[in-house]
Amino acid sequence: MLGYCDVRDMTERLAAPLSPEDQTVQSMPDVSPTKWHRAHVTWFFETFLLGPNDAGYKVFHEQFGYLFNSYYEAVGARHPRPQRGLITRPGAAEIGEYRAHVDSAMTALIERGGDASLQELLELGLHHEQQHQELLVMDAKHVLSLNPLLPAYGDLPWPVTRAQDALDGSGWVGNDGGIVATGHQGDGFAFDNETPRHDVLLAPFEVAADLVTNGDWAAFIDDGGYRRPELWMSDGWYVVQGQGWDAPLYWYPTEDGWRQFTLQGSRPVDPAGAVSHVSWYEADAYARWAGARLPLEAEWEAVAPLADDPQAVRGGWYGQVWQWTASPYVSYPGFVPAAGAVGEYNGKFMVNQQTLRGSALATPPGHARRTYRNFFPPQSRWAFTGLRLAR
Amino acid sequence: MLGYCDVRDMTERLAAPLSPEDQTVQSMPDVSPTKWHRAHVTWFFETFLLGPNDAGYKVFHEQFGYLFNSYYEAVGARHPRPQRGLITRPGAAEIGEYRAHVDSAMTALIERGGDASLQELLELGLHHEQQHQELLVMDAKHVLSLNPLLPAYGDLPWPVTRAQDALDGSGWVGNDGGIVATGHQGDGFAFDNETPRHDVLLAPFEVAADLVTNGDWAAFIDDGGYRRPELWMSDGWYVVQGQGWDAPLYWYPTEDGWRQFTLQGSRPVDPAGAVSHVSWYEADAYARWAGARLPLEAEWEAVAPLADDPQAVRGGWYGQVWQWTASPYVSYPGFVPAAGAVGEYNGKFMVNQQTLRGSALATPPGHARRTYRNFFPPQSRWAFTGLRLAR
Amino acid sequence: MLGYCDVRDMTERLAAPLSPEDQTVQSMPDVSPTKWHRAHVTWFFETFLLGPNDAGYKVFHEQFGYLFNSYYEAVGARHPRPQRGLITRPGAAEIGEYRAHVDSAMTALIERGGDASLQELLELGLHHEQQHQELLVMDAKHVLSLNPLLPAYGDLPWPVTRAQDALDGSGWVGNDGGIVATGHQGDGFAFDNETPRHDVLLAPFEVAADLVTNGDWAAFIDDGGYRRPELWMSDGWYVVQGQGWDAPLYWYPTEDGWRQFTLQGSRPVDPAGAVSHVSWYEADAYARWAGARLPLEAEWEAVAPLADDPQAVRGGWYGQVWQWTASPYVSYPGFVPAAGAVGEYNGKFMVNQQTLRGSALATPPGHARRTYRNFFPPQSRWAFTGLRLAR
Amino acid sequence: MLGYCDVRDMTERLAAPLSPEDQTVQSMPDVSPTKWHRAHVTWFFETFLLGPNDAGYKVFHEQFGYLFNSYYEAVGARHPRPQRGLITRPGAAEIGEYRAHVDSAMTALIERGGDASLQELLELGLHHEQQHQELLVMDAKHVLSLNPLLPAYGDLPWPVTRAQDALDGSGWVGNDGGIVATGHQGDGFAFDNETPRHDVLLAPFEVAADLVTNGDWAAFIDDGGYRRPELWMSDGWYVVQGQGWDAPLYWYPTEDGWRQFTLQGSRPVDPAGAVSHVSWYEADAYARWAGARLPLEAEWEAVAPLADDPQAVRGGWYGQVWQWTASPYVSYPGFVPAAGAVGEYNGKFMVNQQTLRGSALATPPGHARRTYRNFFPPQSRWAFTGLRLAR
Repeated sequence: MLGYCDVRDMTERLAAPLSPEDQTVQSMPDVSPTKWHRAHVTWFFETFLLGPNDAGYKVFHEQFGYLFNSYYEAVGARHPRPQRGLITRPGAAEIGEYRAHVDSAMTALIERGGDASLQELLELGLHHEQQHQELLVMDAKHVLSLNPLLPAYGDLPWPVTRAQDALDGSGWVGNDGGIVATGHQGDGFAFDNETPRHDVLLAPFEVAADLVTNGDWAAFIDDGGYRRPELWMSDGWYVVQGQGWDAPLYWYPTEDGWRQFTLQGSRPVDPAGAVSHVSWYEADAYARWAGARLPLEAEWEAVAPLADDPQAVRGGWYGQVWQWTASPYVSYPGFVPAAGAVGEYNGKFMVNQQTLRGSALATPPGHARRTYRNFFPPQSRWAFTGLRLAR
Repeated sequence: MLGYCDVRDMTERLAAPLSPEDQTVQSMPDVSPTKWHRAHVTWFFETFLLGPNDAGYKVFHEQFGYLFNSYYEAVGARHPRPQRGLITRPGAAEIGEYRAHVDSAMTALIERGGDASLQELLELGLHHEQQHQELLVMDAKHVLSLNPLLPAYGDLPWPVTRAQDALDGSGWVGNDGGIVATGHQGDGFAFDNETPRHDVLLAPFEVAADLVTNGDWAAFIDDGGYRRPELWMSDGWYVVQGQGWDAPLYWYPTEDGWRQFTLQGSRPVDPAGAVSHVSWYEADAYARWAGARLPLEAEWEAVAPLADDPQAVRGGWYGQVWQWTASPYVSYPGFVPAAGAVGEYNGKFMVNQQTLRGSALATPPGHARRTYRNFFPPQSRWAFTGLRLAR
Repeated sequence: MLGYCDVRDMTERLAAPLSPEDQTVQSMPDVSPTKWHRAHVTWFFETFLLGPNDAGYKVFHEQFGYLFNSYYEAVGARHPRPQRGLITRPGAAEIGEYRAHVDSAMTALIERGGDASLQELLELGLHHEQQHQELLVMDAKHVLSLNPLLPAYGDLPWPVTRAQDALDGSGWVGNDGGIVATGHQGDGFAFDNETPRHDVLLAPFEVAADLVTNGDWAAFIDDGGYRRPELWMSDGWYVVQGQGWDAPLYWYPTEDGWRQFTLQGSRPVDPAGAVSHVSWYEADAYARWAGARLPLEAEWEAVAPLADDPQAVRGGWYGQVWQWTASPYVSYPGFVPAAGAVGEYNGKFMVNQQTLRGSALATPPGHARRTYRNFFPPQSRWAFTGLRLAR
Repeated sequence: MLGYCDVRDMTERLAAPLSPEDQTVQSMPDVSPTKWHRAHVTWFFETFLLGPNDAGYKVFHEQFGYLFNSYYEAVGARHPRPQRGLITRPGAAEIGEYRAHVDSAMTALIERGGDASLQELLELGLHHEQQHQELLVMDAKHVLSLNPLLPAYGDLPWPVTRAQDALDGSGWVGNDGGIVATGHQGDGFAFDNETPRHDVLLAPFEVAADLVTNGDWAAFIDDGGYRRPELWMSDGWYVVQGQGWDAPLYWYPTEDGWRQFTLQGSRPVDPAGAVSHVSWYEADAYARWAGARLPLEAEWEAVAPLADDPQAVRGGWYGQVWQWTASPYVSYPGFVPAAGAVGEYNGKFMVNQQTLRGSALATPPGHARRTYRNFFPPQSRWAFTGLRLAR
């Protein structure tokens, strides 16, 4: 199980390179300010653990519940998401005090122990905070990217695999299909949307051993990929034209070729690196252009290594980019959301989204899982999203 | 096979109650003017059949190809969809002349016969026109509904089943699940998206023998269904609040209870009638409220009667309302779009839509099929869309 | 005084070239459908003359008051302006019946005579209808212009001065300024906004004897007029960039030079013609480019000939294009709106508009007046608007 | 003449109560972040004074010219105004360093002296900075107002007149009208838009000796002022309905009556205080309701005391709220903008705005002038804007 202090500390380490100003801005409605993330994950512990389980706990501020509830309808009104960037107070330092206040009460609560349901909520809260750690990074990157000075975030507090070390080179991983069990079962932690484990029927298939690279993507661009409607879903083509897309998010052309905005500032595009910041529409069009398709999420799960397999780094299954699948995000047969407010966690987003598998460089170590189901709308590009092909 | 003149004539019968003014207006971007429908289906025959197969054919007007192409990227530029309602000329009468011009050439072409591929395109063109017949009706209803005078369209040119005659009353239709073949195979016509026939693995399930009725829906409203966020997908709740939805489209409250705008003008809501003009978001929320769920499309197909089964009227499987399913609209495994421009027919819409099954009162007789896959975005309400439950 | 039947008949002559479809569409919120104009001016007589003065009058349709009230808050709710194009019924023919019904009652009322107040309202109603005659033409032109077929409206039912016949060639008309009386006084008809006649103090000035021509405007374009921000008001520059303006409305470039959409369809731009369909922003920028300025409306009035002066055609003071002035549209000192609902006629638009003087080719003969104050927002271009310089 | 260090220091004193987070956010496109104001006024000195006059000056940062140019087209491209709130770096502290860098060079330049044109630009730069001091306060107030915690800015660094001390109580100030000189002439500083001094012809008039108070405004509200279309300009009524206005900006109803958000946080509305944060539309409607009108700006100027008259505090002519006039903001006859880029200062905003006179509590002491012409669009409410009546 994750350690409370380890996870909480990691959030602060991720926020450390960001100034109070950096932590305040919301660059688009999808993005939340850094200090909002820091407060929201804290509110989760305050609301779902301390409130019901610590009779002596005093809330840090009466109105923080309103400001830092993300989307839990069952626990009351909340500040509108698109207006998170208008809140300058509490500032970054005061959020730090809020975190310390809750940490103090939480560590005492943890020491006192508690029943299984409390343990489950604690574990959920920590995995929830890890999710927001990744969001914090991708949101901060988006904020900084809109500054003409192209300022750097800096290095992540964990090792990131070099692109060339992730290449597998072995072509395709075949599978005979048939009835295959998919989803989570057993003792380890999983989100409710990974359950119940169930059988699916697959036709024989192959999944690429490697991720699609920046070099591959440049060939797609050079071949007119962004100008050929026959490659695109109708909705995707509409977005391409309306937004003027001609490359992944954060790429920009220079006299010396493509450059991209990264956490370290502007860098030349590395042909060997996994392509990132592409939408599902782009991934789907690329696959069609390549004479292939995206894998179903059950196909991906059937052939991917376990996330803690030391070999998993090869082939980029984890730790590089999330990988779009052909599967819309729907509930597994027999899915039952958790009871209470936390039951809103995943179930109510099961429409208009596509599933992604694997994990990305900004995913905290230990958070990835073979059965993990990430999801974003098909036009989203600000997450660390790439693809591998299937056929 | 459908008769060319029968289908063509039916379109004109459906347009007959609509004045030149009625045929011109586009009430929202999803809607097309009646005279556009009449011209577009004609352009299909002109472009895909006469053009390649009738060397002596002279196009009726050089620019109609631009005006009446719907979305076929492969056959050139086209007039923007949201601006179809700005085109006053050609008028309704001139569109009639265009239709006669093409019909004359088409009947000659049909008499000359042709290879299988021509026959296939002819059949596709006729089924395409039947689809637009239904669109014509639902679009005209929407146009008329925005007039404070609530003018009537009138009766459809085919018999419509009375609501109470469609009640089955037998509760639930059970099925043991297992490996089930789904999709079209064989000689009769089907759209490409119904193929290939393939196996799916289903858990045991039940599907309701009856459609959800207006009376059922009124109970949902009375129980606060439109005010309880826990019943809704997050995206759906956003739409409910943004649009102020509190009942199906076309319902409005009066001192004497709910009334609804119908093809015959304003009518009291009939509790025994199938609820119609609800979005997928509403159907999904209703099912959750009812302690049930929407069926998968494979489940629906496994238990539905054949469309030409005389018993099919019972239970409202066909001819009342399209029935939302829990299945996002995606390609069947191994799906290959048709070659050429007509390959754009269905495949490029396979994202952000939900599948519907059955058929509606405005579906032309003979057009329905058990394997038929209709699809709309989850917020759409102007089609004749209802639901039946599953569990 | 204007003749009732003459004015009413002229409206129908202006609508005659327009099909039922043409008469239905609203191409932007500023535009009203032809059949709406025909009905609205009729509603004016029904509401303000027949209602209070003809006890036996029966309204043609109970809901027409709702549909055809333009903006008179005092006489009740009304259909939202941007939705006028959604009303297909009553159709163009039924509007004709409505007009005949009201004409029958009105001619009887006129025969019976009436007090001065009734005579005043009658005269106001006829001048109001003449205003809508011009709106009908400019709105219909806009609707037709959005059709890629560029269909023609045809000839107006009155003679239009040829461009070259309007050239004066005498340069500038000087004036010593001083205290000058401006505004309407006396017996003839005038709108309330032309009163009271009052003194203004003017510095010495000159006004150009001729209108700015298309040839002049082409020189402005060629000199980068649309690409030089220093020539523009800040709001104007924002519009130029946002809308991509690079020429007057209805001009479009071809290999053979500029062409423009006219009431007769597409025509080459005539260098000798008065430039038309330019916004105030463009007129103001042109004047700055030319080292001049727009005249104040009092300056214009001080030097313009009377509208019924046979010499007035020379110099294009009337009958070519409305001429933008430097004057925002505000009330004259001591202005008092008319009592009752018709008091809403002009006063409530006295902000965010610029005044225009003269008249245009689409202004009905006899409607122009030297003291006439027309007004449009500074970005408007669909009226027949041009300019003459001052300094 | 204003002292360079005094003015520069005052800006920093005004920013001091605002945290780095407060200084970063842009709450609407009209608003600029505090740190942007601090940088922009600095850029003005760097660009227009140091650049041309100090050969040894090194710009602080190459890209600040892009980031902190407000609207001067003549000095190059600039960052889009609505995106000012996306720039987190440079932060508030680095802006402080930028200011110090420029101040150091500027004080040296001032010591070296310079020709009259340099002195003029210096004076312009300081008055420009004073204008932004007021903008800084009103923008910060708007940012803080959107926070549900309603945080306080605190006290201004100069004395503010208590409301009751500003009451005059003497009713109306009469004037016989006639030819009156208006505008600036002579030695003291004035903006170009206050010149040239010129004669206008006024009818006899009276202007109220007092400002309209919050108590007056409450009576207007209670009398249905926001619900009676006959009181409003058409454009204003559209805004009232679209925005749901029912009171001045920052007022909100409670069980204990109206409260308002102030620089000191939430306070009960003081009936004796001058009403503030009303738009021109509201001021105009109020005047109509009161049976009066707004004064022309020449009327205001003809009866107002001089700004440095010790008696001017009585009657609230200065230092309470800017006072809307009936006059659209246009150039004075014979107006010539200054040469060079600073000529863009005022002239290009002379359309779609209404003139205001006097000054407000947030106007820096010494900045007000009897001939001063402030201007805002008629829907603006976030400035400290009120009114006095005329008749």
